[in-house]
Amino acid sequence: MTNSATNLRLKLPMACIILEVIIIILFGALVQYDDETDAKLWHKEIANGSSNYDNDFYYRYPSFQDVHVMIFIGFGFLMTFLQRYGFSSVGFNFLIAAFALQWATLMQGFVHGMHGGKIHVGIESMINADFCTGSVLISFGAVLGKTSPVQLLVMSVIEVTLFAVNEFIVLSVLGAKDAGGSMTIHTFGAYFGLMVARVLYRPNLDKSKHKNCSVYHSDLFAMIGTIYLWMFWPSFNSAVTAHGDDQHRTAMNTYYSLAACTLATYGLSAVVAHDGKLDMVHIQNAALAGGVAVGTAGEMMLTPFGSMIVGFLAGTISVLGFKFLSPILEQKLKIQDTCGVHNLHGMPGVLGAIVGAVTAALATKDVYGDGLLPLLRNRQTPASFQGIRQAISLAVTLGIALLGGLITGFILKLPIYGAPPDTICFEDGIYWELPGEEGSHEELTTVRTPDEAEKLNA
Amino acid sequence: MTNSATNLRLKLPMACIILEVIIIILFGALVQYDDETDAKLWHKEIANGSSNYDNDFYYRYPSFQDVHVMIFIGFGFLMTFLQRYGFSSVGFNFLIAAFALQWATLMQGFVHGMHGGKIHVGIESMINADFCTGSVLISFGAVLGKTSPVQLLVMSVIEVTLFAVNEFIVLSVLGAKDAGGSMTIHTFGAYFGLMVARVLYRPNLDKSKHKNCSVYHSDLFAMIGTIYLWMFWPSFNSAVTAHGDDQHRTAMNTYYSLAACTLATYGLSAVVAHDGKLDMVHIQNAALAGGVAVGTAGEMMLTPFGSMIVGFLAGTISVLGFKFLSPILEQKLKIQDTCGVHNLHGMPGVLGAIVGAVTAALATKDVYGDGLLPLLRNRQTPASFQGIRQAISLAVTLGIALLGGLITGFILKLPIYGAPPDTICFEDGIYWELPGEEGSHEELTTVRTPDEAEKLNA
Amino acid sequence: MTNSATNLRLKLPMACIILEVIIIILFGALVQYDDETDAKLWHKEIANGSSNYDNDFYYRYPSFQDVHVMIFIGFGFLMTFLQRYGFSSVGFNFLIAAFALQWATLMQGFVHGMHGGKIHVGIESMINADFCTGSVLISFGAVLGKTSPVQLLVMSVIEVTLFAVNEFIVLSVLGAKDAGGSMTIHTFGAYFGLMVARVLYRPNLDKSKHKNCSVYHSDLFAMIGTIYLWMFWPSFNSAVTAHGDDQHRTAMNTYYSLAACTLATYGLSAVVAHDGKLDMVHIQNAALAGGVAVGTAGEMMLTPFGSMIVGFLAGTISVLGFKFLSPILEQKLKIQDTCGVHNLHGMPGVLGAIVGAVTAALATKDVYGDGLLPLLRNRQTPASFQGIRQAISLAVTLGIALLGGLITGFILKLPIYGAPPDTICFEDGIYWELPGEEGSHEELTTVRTPDEAEKLNA
Repeated sequence: MTNSATNLRLKLPMACIILEVIIIILFGALVQYDDETDAKLWHKEIANGSSNYDNDFYYRYPSFQDVHVMIFIGFGFLMTFLQRYGFSSVGFNFLIAAFALQWATLMQGFVHGMHGGKIHVGIESMINADFCTGSVLISFGAVLGKTSPVQLLVMSVIEVTLFAVNEFIVLSVLGAKDAGGSMTIHTFGAYFGLMVARVLYRPNLDKSKHKNCSVYHSDLFAMIGTIYLWMFWPSFNSAVTAHGDDQHRTAMNTYYSLAACTLATYGLSAVVAHDGKLDMVHIQNAALAGGVAVGTAGEMMLTPFGSMIVGFLAGTISVLGFKFLSPILEQKLKIQDTCGVHNLHGMPGVLGAIVGAVTAALATKDVYGDGLLPLLRNRQTPASFQGIRQAISLAVTLGIALLGGLITGFILKLPIYGAPPDTICFEDGIYWELPGEEGSHEELTTVRTPDEAEKLNA
Repeated sequence: MTNSATNLRLKLPMACIILEVIIIILFGALVQYDDETDAKLWHKEIANGSSNYDNDFYYRYPSFQDVHVMIFIGFGFLMTFLQRYGFSSVGFNFLIAAFALQWATLMQGFVHGMHGGKIHVGIESMINADFCTGSVLISFGAVLGKTSPVQLLVMSVIEVTLFAVNEFIVLSVLGAKDAGGSMTIHTFGAYFGLMVARVLYRPNLDKSKHKNCSVYHSDLFAMIGTIYLWMFWPSFNSAVTAHGDDQHRTAMNTYYSLAACTLATYGLSAVVAHDGKLDMVHIQNAALAGGVAVGTAGEMMLTPFGSMIVGFLAGTISVLGFKFLSPILEQKLKIQDTCGVHNLHGMPGVLGAIVGAVTAALATKDVYGDGLLPLLRNRQTPASFQGIRQAISLAVTLGIALLGGLITGFILKLPIYGAPPDTICFEDGIYWELPGEEGSHEELTTVRTPDEAEKLNA
Repeated sequence: MTNSATNLRLKLPMACIILEVIIIILFGALVQYDDETDAKLWHKEIANGSSNYDNDFYYRYPSFQDVHVMIFIGFGFLMTFLQRYGFSSVGFNFLIAAFALQWATLMQGFVHGMHGGKIHVGIESMINADFCTGSVLISFGAVLGKTSPVQLLVMSVIEVTLFAVNEFIVLSVLGAKDAGGSMTIHTFGAYFGLMVARVLYRPNLDKSKHKNCSVYHSDLFAMIGTIYLWMFWPSFNSAVTAHGDDQHRTAMNTYYSLAACTLATYGLSAVVAHDGKLDMVHIQNAALAGGVAVGTAGEMMLTPFGSMIVGFLAGTISVLGFKFLSPILEQKLKIQDTCGVHNLHGMPGVLGAIVGAVTAALATKDVYGDGLLPLLRNRQTPASFQGIRQAISLAVTLGIALLGGLITGFILKLPIYGAPPDTICFEDGIYWELPGEEGSHEELTTVRTPDEAEKLNA
């Protein structure tokens, strides 16, 4: 199975070490502690009457850790559903996330404004870097099982860069609100990844078809990922919203949206699945769409009622997407979307962007009071202008994602990254030393011979 | 295996969608942001001199997320110990928890007092809804493997309602303290579930006996649930206690109680189990009893010393319950308690209620200082009165739980919910599309043929 | 397999119950709530103008829970990589951690100063007890699979005691800084455990060789441990640092160190492993070395740049250690280090101590401002003196760990603890009732007979 084409002894180390050395050099030249992590500056603030509690660390660190769990456990284990791709799912997720969060710190620092030629870092830059990483992992879901870790690192380099550019345009130029990233994270990551998958289309992928499915325990491992994503999504959407009611309200709106989404998912899954049974693919994925779909409007006065309607719709379109749209995407559009990111992040992300635009447009001083101002880019213009800003942002995001994915796809198509052949996709063995491959049956399962069992019970 | 009786293509979607639509309508009519999640109201408080840090979100959100993990990962994975019921354990846990937390918000809102005809929601209502959900999941443990998801949803509707009524009587009418829910959550959930299991008694359940046990990996998955419940129990018991020393002390008392309970569990397990070996059932369950047993007294001045004694006792009675009482419950009282919730939640819950009553009765101004007042319902009466309030609350809880479980059991016995036949209990395949059912051996295990192994290592 | 020598029916209960009774008595005699957990004392502080937010609970509880997860899930599951030792890995980890945190509270209380003859407990003592427990679990990793739970409890009694003594000398007498425990936790735990493993050397351990390896799913369970340790290490290193910029900076430095370490680990693993493939042993362990290596300097002004260099180095030496040093340790020095703690905790711990000494020596008022003072033991002496304090602390730690491990090894060698014979190491069955041992193949795997599959799909 291993041959010179997929052997990474040189390629992977070179990619990892060159990238890390570049990052370290750039950090050395450009990155500084911000006012709240620098000993001298913070103690100056303390001397001026600040309390240690004013340090943003205490407002955001618990949310950061929840987001961190979503990135590394949530995304990583969600993708372990494939029967023989668990090492790669968790392991490549780990690798590209560890890379992307460093690269994102630099790219986001560049475009969001340097301070005297330096990038300032603290808890908020850490959360934003994790967010950008999430977008890359969504794209990873679309190409799961069909790419080498070197390809994934190259994809991360480009995607993180374009993510930062798009985020800058959406948040800073257009002045849209998108705290939970319905547009900047989910829509961007999904359509970028789908376009990459389109360019990397493998007409003979059915040769690996028998491995592109789950087994009993792999589905249970995947549920670890699903449940963590579901539980911590309120922290994700509220991690960088304003202090006080904003963080509080965003977390609560997300909580209600997800709960309603889950009921819709179970209901719809039993309708469309074979024989009235539930389909794990729907439960693992569609139940999360409610978190995606309130990623923009969650910080607004969407109300629990509104959040639940959005969540219910998101779960519904997601299940229907898995059932009816995914086969079309594959057969007609030639997009082989391994994890169905179009159903979990793509459509719900677009829904979330639209809900956000409408909710922003409907905002009034009567409902928001003094809380209206932080919502509006321009305090002179009415809220409907904010709605238009939001809508344009969706279009820009889709454009950059699709174009970026197209170019990236062609770059990843170069035959130099050790990508797996069509016959050995969805298979850990190509990039990982697997345990017990030469072992006997006994070592590989929990079965014992009667003799052994007897001895054990003697 | 699937026949019209257990086919849920109509029943489950109807249940899920009708319930969710009812919830959404009620939320639309009745639920409002509270002062700390409403943009206008909170900005008014800020204008009046409040700091964002006064928002209860920062006092309680980390605890909420820990509780959330206990509900969805803790309870969900604890029940995956069954060899072929992992999808249902995690999946039905997910479904009924997502439903129950919405329904609980409404029911608890109704009985605990509306504000101008509206239910106000914020972080505290989210925690309380999760607590109520926990009670339903305890009952789920008693009937695990023998019920359809439609039955479970119907059970949740009734149980959540009665939980809210009982909680109102205990906390608001009787004025008992029960922050960690020894009575309202654990005693209530356990005896409610046991009574349901009694009414649903299946004399021919031994036909599914070979599936009512664990395999090696299912026990490891269950340990994920156990350890998360164990670690986060300090957050559970302290999540809604008063700010300051109360939250701090409650978390610490629970931490010590659980540690002592664990030592007792290991010691007793080796005594009573076969051949001096440890029994996973004890470790997975009894080690948690210490958290249950300080659910009432944990916020009081129980001292670490007292907490450890309570934890030690709880672990002891729990292991002994599994060994000696569970078989009697099944054979004599015809209660088939799949997870042994009587040993983990029932007896330790009653113990916790008694410890709480005694600790409250012994409270003095000398020990509590100004911290005594929040403990007492009536500041004029002596602490011994508080002890009596606590004792009466236990009796009321037991009464409502048993009576409610009885009625619920008969409702669930109606042959309309698609319950599994006696021969196919404890089996995911009846409600879930299982992976690889038609696959070859090779796909289902990690075993490879020599040919394949050779190719891989070539 | 079970015979009188390894039967623990008397030994384990006696150990657990006697130890717990001793602990409870000592807690009763010596342990008191501190000012922030005592109702009377805290309400007095409130009356004097404190806010509830000043309670240290709110500064440290989220970090505590992250550390708690590392101890019980992180260490526990990291060690489940062995194919038939998952129950023991998680279960014994659970037992000795629950014991050690109680014993540590007492031992650390004794040496770190009593208050009027009493040990005061609160959130900080809870974190410190968990830290001490971590050290014991590191040593557990060195002897994993070759020891009985009674041996492990005895080891914990001694190791916790010596840990407290060493910690007192390093932090209080020598005045070193070591917030994340590069020296006191990692170096101490690793070299203590390695010395114990040396004394307990088993020349015939190759008789159990076929069990001293992983299988596919056991490696996935181990990744749960790895990822949790990786994600929460920023909380570990910052849990007891000073409020404000210190906690903030420490968490961020650790985050960057780990990210860089991960890239180095993947790169190096592909270089040294068989055939250019990645080795799970490296990913599971070496990727964590970056957290260990900034355990001392993390709270200093190490800069993100410095943190990344340290992390990169740590990952590199750790992978190389697994590849080249571990075989030498085993063959030449007769140290059978099951988990390779020398590569994950030993060498990176020493590296961390050295980095800490250098960083402390280079501290200047110009960089730290008023933040310099908390760093220095003696405000009159220059920072270079602090560097010397740090260096001496490393030497003292190594001395106490090696000597303590030596003595402990000989105590554990007494043939009274029910240790497993050489032929049945790395095997759960010796101490645990295993499920399905007498079952058929069908019960133990997910395989179905064609008949069954047909019925299921009927």
